[in-house]
Amino acid sequence: MDLKGKIRVIHDFPKEGIRFKDITTLLKDGDALRAATNQLGEMAKELGADAVVGPEARGFVIGTPLAYYIGEGFIPVRKAGKLPADTYKVEYDLEYGTDVLEMHKDALEPDNKVVIVDDLLATGGTTEACIKLVEKSGAKVVGALFLVELTYLSGRERLKDYVIKSLIKF
Amino acid sequence: MDLKGKIRVIHDFPKEGIRFKDITTLLKDGDALRAATNQLGEMAKELGADAVVGPEARGFVIGTPLAYYIGEGFIPVRKAGKLPADTYKVEYDLEYGTDVLEMHKDALEPDNKVVIVDDLLATGGTTEACIKLVEKSGAKVVGALFLVELTYLSGRERLKDYVIKSLIKF
Repeated sequence: MDLKGKIRVIHDFPKEGIRFKDITTLLKDGDALRAATNQLGEMAKELGADAVVGPEARGFVIGTPLAYYIGEGFIPVRKAGKLPADTYKVEYDLEYGTDVLEMHKDALEPDNKVVIVDDLLATGGTTEACIKLVEKSGAKVVGALFLVELTYLSGRERLKDYVIKSLIKF
Repeated sequence: MDLKGKIRVIHDFPKEGIRFKDITTLLKDGDALRAATNQLGEMAKELGADAVVGPEARGFVIGTPLAYYIGEGFIPVRKAGKLPADTYKVEYDLEYGTDVLEMHKDALEPDNKVVIVDDLLATGGTTEACIKLVEKSGAKVVGALFLVELTYLSGRERLKDYVIKSLIKF
C-alpha cells in the first residue's frame, strides 16, 4: 500500500512557508491505519520492545494501536499538569521558549525495553525529552518509531545514539 | 479480567473533592489494554460502525486501537486551531466559559455509521459536541462507547437519544 500517498500536505499551516504533513487522511482510511500499525508493530517486535511510550496528542494515535498489536502496555507522556500521580518532568525547547513534558514515575520498571512512538520526526526535540523521561525511570530505550520523518530537519542526527525507524519519508 | 480494578482513583485531582479516575494504570497493562479494546470493539461491531470518532486527547488512546480492531478508520476531534484543513466547529460548555471542538469537513461521508469513543463519560458535554460535529457532516451516530462511566453525573440522560455503552461504571 502507498502509505505516503495517504498523507495530505497542506501549505502554510500553521504558518507561512510550512508544508504541514496531515496524517488524518491516513488515519481515516481503515486499511491504511491497519497497514501502518502492522508495519510499525513489526519494527517494535524486532527491537524486543515490552512497553510503548508516546507523547500527547498525536503520539497517542500511533502508539496505542501499536501497543495493542504487540500486546504490551501504553504509557502516555503528557504536557505539564495533566497526569494525576507523581511524575518525572523534563523541560524541552520549543521554537520560542520552553515547555515541560511529564511521565508517571510508576509507569515503567527498570527492566522495561521501551519503544517511543510518535506520528512525526522533525527536529527530534520531543523525542529527546521522551527518552530522558524513560531513562529517569531506569528503563532502556530500544528505539524510536515514527509514521513520518522529515529528513531535511535532521532529527535522526540529534538522536544518533538510538535506533530510529520511520515508515514514510519526506 | 477485573478491568475496574485496573483504574486508579486519585483524590483531590485536579482539585479538592474530585476523585479522579486515572486510566493510565489500565493502559500500561498490555493484557488490560487488549481486553478493554476487544470488548469495546465488539460493541462497535454490534452497532454496525464503519468509522470511529474520538476527541483529543484521551479519546485518541481508546479510539485508535478500537478502530484498528474493527478495521475501520479513526477521525480525530480536536481543540480549535489544531486541524489543518477546513473544519466544522462546535462550541461547548466547560465549567467556566466555553471551548470549541473541530472536525475536518471531509473526514466523513453522509453514509458513514459512526461510533464516538472516549475514555470517560461524565456530564456528556464533550460527547454531545462530537455528536453535533458528526451530524453536521450528514453521517449517522450509531452509538457512543466509553471505557469508564461516572453514573452519578448522569451523562447518559443528557445523551438519551443515542445508544450509550460503557465498560466500567463508578
